[in-house]
Amino acid sequence: MTEVQAPDILRCAYMEIVVTDLAKSREFYVDVLGLVVTEEDDNEIYLRSMEEFIHHNIVLKKGPEAAIGVFSYRVRTPEDVDAAEAFYKNLGCRTERNKDGFVKGIGDSVRVEDPLGFPYEFFYEVDHVERLAWRYELYSPGALVRLDHFNQVTPDVPKAEKYMEDLGFRVTEAIRDDKGTTYAAWMRRKPTVHDTAMTGGDGPRMHHIAFATHEKHNILAICDKLGALRRSDAIERGPGRHGVSNAFYLYLRDPDGHRVEIYTQDYYTGDPDNPVVVWDVHDNQRRDWWGTPVVPSWYTDASRVLDLDGNLVPLVERTDASELEETIGADGFSYTRSDEGEESMPEWKQGEYKLGNQL
Amino acid sequence: MTEVQAPDILRCAYMEIVVTDLAKSREFYVDVLGLVVTEEDDNEIYLRSMEEFIHHNIVLKKGPEAAIGVFSYRVRTPEDVDAAEAFYKNLGCRTERNKDGFVKGIGDSVRVEDPLGFPYEFFYEVDHVERLAWRYELYSPGALVRLDHFNQVTPDVPKAEKYMEDLGFRVTEAIRDDKGTTYAAWMRRKPTVHDTAMTGGDGPRMHHIAFATHEKHNILAICDKLGALRRSDAIERGPGRHGVSNAFYLYLRDPDGHRVEIYTQDYYTGDPDNPVVVWDVHDNQRRDWWGTPVVPSWYTDASRVLDLDGNLVPLVERTDASELEETIGADGFSYTRSDEGEESMPEWKQGEYKLGNQL
Amino acid sequence: MTEVQAPDILRCAYMEIVVTDLAKSREFYVDVLGLVVTEEDDNEIYLRSMEEFIHHNIVLKKGPEAAIGVFSYRVRTPEDVDAAEAFYKNLGCRTERNKDGFVKGIGDSVRVEDPLGFPYEFFYEVDHVERLAWRYELYSPGALVRLDHFNQVTPDVPKAEKYMEDLGFRVTEAIRDDKGTTYAAWMRRKPTVHDTAMTGGDGPRMHHIAFATHEKHNILAICDKLGALRRSDAIERGPGRHGVSNAFYLYLRDPDGHRVEIYTQDYYTGDPDNPVVVWDVHDNQRRDWWGTPVVPSWYTDASRVLDLDGNLVPLVERTDASELEETIGADGFSYTRSDEGEESMPEWKQGEYKLGNQL
Amino acid sequence: MTEVQAPDILRCAYMEIVVTDLAKSREFYVDVLGLVVTEEDDNEIYLRSMEEFIHHNIVLKKGPEAAIGVFSYRVRTPEDVDAAEAFYKNLGCRTERNKDGFVKGIGDSVRVEDPLGFPYEFFYEVDHVERLAWRYELYSPGALVRLDHFNQVTPDVPKAEKYMEDLGFRVTEAIRDDKGTTYAAWMRRKPTVHDTAMTGGDGPRMHHIAFATHEKHNILAICDKLGALRRSDAIERGPGRHGVSNAFYLYLRDPDGHRVEIYTQDYYTGDPDNPVVVWDVHDNQRRDWWGTPVVPSWYTDASRVLDLDGNLVPLVERTDASELEETIGADGFSYTRSDEGEESMPEWKQGEYKLGNQL
Repeated sequence: MTEVQAPDILRCAYMEIVVTDLAKSREFYVDVLGLVVTEEDDNEIYLRSMEEFIHHNIVLKKGPEAAIGVFSYRVRTPEDVDAAEAFYKNLGCRTERNKDGFVKGIGDSVRVEDPLGFPYEFFYEVDHVERLAWRYELYSPGALVRLDHFNQVTPDVPKAEKYMEDLGFRVTEAIRDDKGTTYAAWMRRKPTVHDTAMTGGDGPRMHHIAFATHEKHNILAICDKLGALRRSDAIERGPGRHGVSNAFYLYLRDPDGHRVEIYTQDYYTGDPDNPVVVWDVHDNQRRDWWGTPVVPSWYTDASRVLDLDGNLVPLVERTDASELEETIGADGFSYTRSDEGEESMPEWKQGEYKLGNQL
Repeated sequence: MTEVQAPDILRCAYMEIVVTDLAKSREFYVDVLGLVVTEEDDNEIYLRSMEEFIHHNIVLKKGPEAAIGVFSYRVRTPEDVDAAEAFYKNLGCRTERNKDGFVKGIGDSVRVEDPLGFPYEFFYEVDHVERLAWRYELYSPGALVRLDHFNQVTPDVPKAEKYMEDLGFRVTEAIRDDKGTTYAAWMRRKPTVHDTAMTGGDGPRMHHIAFATHEKHNILAICDKLGALRRSDAIERGPGRHGVSNAFYLYLRDPDGHRVEIYTQDYYTGDPDNPVVVWDVHDNQRRDWWGTPVVPSWYTDASRVLDLDGNLVPLVERTDASELEETIGADGFSYTRSDEGEESMPEWKQGEYKLGNQL
Repeated sequence: MTEVQAPDILRCAYMEIVVTDLAKSREFYVDVLGLVVTEEDDNEIYLRSMEEFIHHNIVLKKGPEAAIGVFSYRVRTPEDVDAAEAFYKNLGCRTERNKDGFVKGIGDSVRVEDPLGFPYEFFYEVDHVERLAWRYELYSPGALVRLDHFNQVTPDVPKAEKYMEDLGFRVTEAIRDDKGTTYAAWMRRKPTVHDTAMTGGDGPRMHHIAFATHEKHNILAICDKLGALRRSDAIERGPGRHGVSNAFYLYLRDPDGHRVEIYTQDYYTGDPDNPVVVWDVHDNQRRDWWGTPVVPSWYTDASRVLDLDGNLVPLVERTDASELEETIGADGFSYTRSDEGEESMPEWKQGEYKLGNQL
Repeated sequence: MTEVQAPDILRCAYMEIVVTDLAKSREFYVDVLGLVVTEEDDNEIYLRSMEEFIHHNIVLKKGPEAAIGVFSYRVRTPEDVDAAEAFYKNLGCRTERNKDGFVKGIGDSVRVEDPLGFPYEFFYEVDHVERLAWRYELYSPGALVRLDHFNQVTPDVPKAEKYMEDLGFRVTEAIRDDKGTTYAAWMRRKPTVHDTAMTGGDGPRMHHIAFATHEKHNILAICDKLGALRRSDAIERGPGRHGVSNAFYLYLRDPDGHRVEIYTQDYYTGDPDNPVVVWDVHDNQRRDWWGTPVVPSWYTDASRVLDLDGNLVPLVERTDASELEETIGADGFSYTRSDEGEESMPEWKQGEYKLGNQL
């Protein structure tokens, strides 16, 4: 089945996000986060980051129910759109081709319902717009400069890894345990830690979309501004330093609850023998290098995705062990030093990782 | 009683901290935090920050039990030591004068057991040492440049405010509620937000000692280093942005559990009519501007203090309402927007401020 | 003469700057630098920094000729305005008292023509306005948070030092040579490196007014924005690290050529025995710690000042050696390592400090 | 001739630098800049950056004369070493193959004398070493995290562009004038602004090697440290913001005069239709976005390179117009605003760009 050549994917390019109140979402993405409007009308807003030169990184689309319309990737050549179509047809997936693009600014594209149930899109043709990198008079203190990655929730992570590797992605980091369970995996096309990650859970769902800033203080400035606007409850988790990816991060929730990460300073991964980093699920520095416990909602909440007809894709339950239960749930544990276990932590710290077990 | 002239206090100057394992404490304060050793022997270590020119900002003293030996302030003239002695004698407090100083590097000093039960010291004479401000070859990524403030736990904050104002301090910010309860107050001599703060709770206890860095990234670097050393469990709270003081902060616990804050970027308060900022205890941005809940240990834990004979001062219980109970306890609540209440917060956020109620 | 008690000065408070094109100046100070307009009309604009709570830090006043109207200091009490008046009368200086203030927002004030020829003002009464410290939604990437200091050009620096010490200032740093010449001195009331400095040259003239940012990247952001606006020729010197003061700096020129410094991270100087730092005029790290040569215009250009009738104060020539000539002029030299001299510098570097000699 | 398939080059990987005093160079690269020693002996030191996982990014080699031994690139597969060898043989270039590598840590490699006279190397096999990205206890304030690019001096830039495009590089930015002269061009394999750049001048020479930091303050910290060590004369140019590449930069000179750039925050260039940015040679923000004049030595000085026998490659003179002469030389000019010319600059600024004409 994998004899069919995978398309040559450049990078994650944009996400179509269905929102229930376009004005509220515009306020969040434009007024608070400072994304730039490429164009907009009463039903859609096209947004891009400061260093982007393609038409958009997000399409906000008004709809009756919050959901994700598509995860879109750019490919290297026009022919790679054909290759993508053939690749998914060969997998028996439903595909749709639109020579004029499904959204503004994008030309010939194929959309598919992938083997994990996600709506994926591939395109090459795209309108160029001004790269605002040098336009410092337009920068806010928390300027978002680049779309960095997607993150998807899927019940069977090893299956997802296999599929994505066939599609040409490489795994850079993963969270596993010594019983052979995989909790999450990060995979890339462009030479950063990821273009998308697969997080174990009931899926298909969208965990988050992530934008990069230049420096860490830019991320702190977003928090400060949210406080000033009395919108600090949009902050779900962080800011902090990831173990996985070594990046500095912040997780926000948009007015519909869609999760947006702000992210900076991971590392170059472009060599074919780039060392894969595997983290123990019980290492409490894996998701936050400073050991800050992950809030339970970060594990449990995610956005539903739509099929190509615009209907919610039904969820499949994860049957493997859950990271939440393994680490902060009733039977779980986590450690700061692997040779000492949780008991070695200071007394005032020991309860902290169990706080989720009341959920 | 207050006819006696208060001494002219310059600033908080140093703290004497009794630790149970001098080698472990040295590793924490010197190897991890990068404080500079002015001198040391088998029983004591004298430490200072990069921009300090007086002999020390901390004396670590080996002892059988973790505790605080003294909170020491520098006064403007030698005569102010006399004034301090007279001030406390007039209050009926026990005082001890030592012309040669109670510790190395410090000359004529008076130590007192103050009306709140704290061991306070006042001195003018001190050895000058090299101010390392320009010695960038010695800076670590998380360099501590200045002693910023103390923070004390005392059961009756209004009583403490009154006493400290008599001593010449000015209140800059406070946390109160509409029933007239005061939960905490910040007070200063040097024109920053505080030289010390009074936090409501069973006291007298030492809540924390705080050092300043130049920038926020220096504080993040300390967290990153603790992660790398697999010592992230020394991080108790933060990093974050305070509401009170507007400073960026981090709270650590030393090997004995003494709390150390790292702090940067509060504001100038030196005008006599500097506006006092009062925060509502139910405002969940008061202690963290980003709305991150305060971990319960931060409210409950603090260091015992010693009397002038070296014995633990007995605790007096707080009878006023507790900030922990009012905000994250069984009956408490907190809000992001005062006109909306907790119910307005996103659903996934509502439980978060109650997590402490299982304690 | 100095038996008269000096007024208790709190800090430098504001400067009245006469500009020839109010719209152009507004664009520079408000649109580019982000200072906040407290109030304005067709002839005047009142500006303040983000953390200020008094009415203004700058008054821009429309006039026929670019000049400085006044250097204004805030004193501790209303009575200190009387003290200031008496102090200068005793010195035989011309004074003017205005119970209603000379500008909006300020009450009872005295203006004087001081012994060096500068127009100085002292006031206590002032309107309070909102301190915008927490209003992060209003911060730009290069936000100016505090007025830090003035800098004045005067021919006889030792004379100026003596007068300012009588007025209650303390010298914190100075540039001298081994022949006894003083080139510049820094002096403070608030416990930073300075509220004003005296720079040797033909005077009285205003060298610069300086605002503080929180961090160094804020200063870099101002440069980036000026580049984006194609206004980079407003940058005269820097950014760089000062030797004197240890602060990070940038010098701009406003549309009339008035010099504005942006400055961050000097150190606490509030102790009475704060060590004075004396720099050798030949040390090429004194004005820039990285050894970047000072551009000649920075030495030669400065703004004329007005007397109390609004006329330009005549210049008195400096007769002592000039720092420009001593260090980058025909006979001057400077060194990186005092024991080696200029010859020890790499060949490609040796000419650099002489570039000014063609002027 | 170009029918021969170019090797698939991943990235610039390391440079072999011949130094005359190994101890002095070690002090500069290791003690001052903080590069990590992978291994060393009396004749060679192998150095890498914090995020590198291959054996080294620099080989310092003791020699009688300062020069550059090789510019080395990593290719995607072992077969690409064969491809590189064939590619250069087809060009008629001298090549040498060594199955065991020419230096430690590297396997099968080919070295060539390329059409521009530069010693180039291509390899795939390399020893993996620990990626120190998470080892924050080892970071200095100015930590170098990644080798970013090389920069080469060559007389005929268009010829160099053509050759490098045949080799598979893409131009991202260039400096040209309206008469058709090319002054410099930037070209990349990995998706940053460059893996190497071609600067017009007498060549072949090595202009600089560049390492990346995470943030801008890291670069400032290197300057501060050089000041503290009284080594500020190692700073040749900057820090500043480039126009070309939009990166923040600093140029140092090592003890032999080899130029090292410290660099951070350019942008993603990985799309095949990435917009090429062309700068006018008279735009004085092209090389420094803040308009700071380039020091003449930066244009004139560069390191000689060796042929495969270890002899200096003779220089070929540039005959096209020189950027130095065009912009700061006798007949040159530069502008801040293209529609206004130099005359529009403030008077105090106009002479500044001519300072080089005395050379």
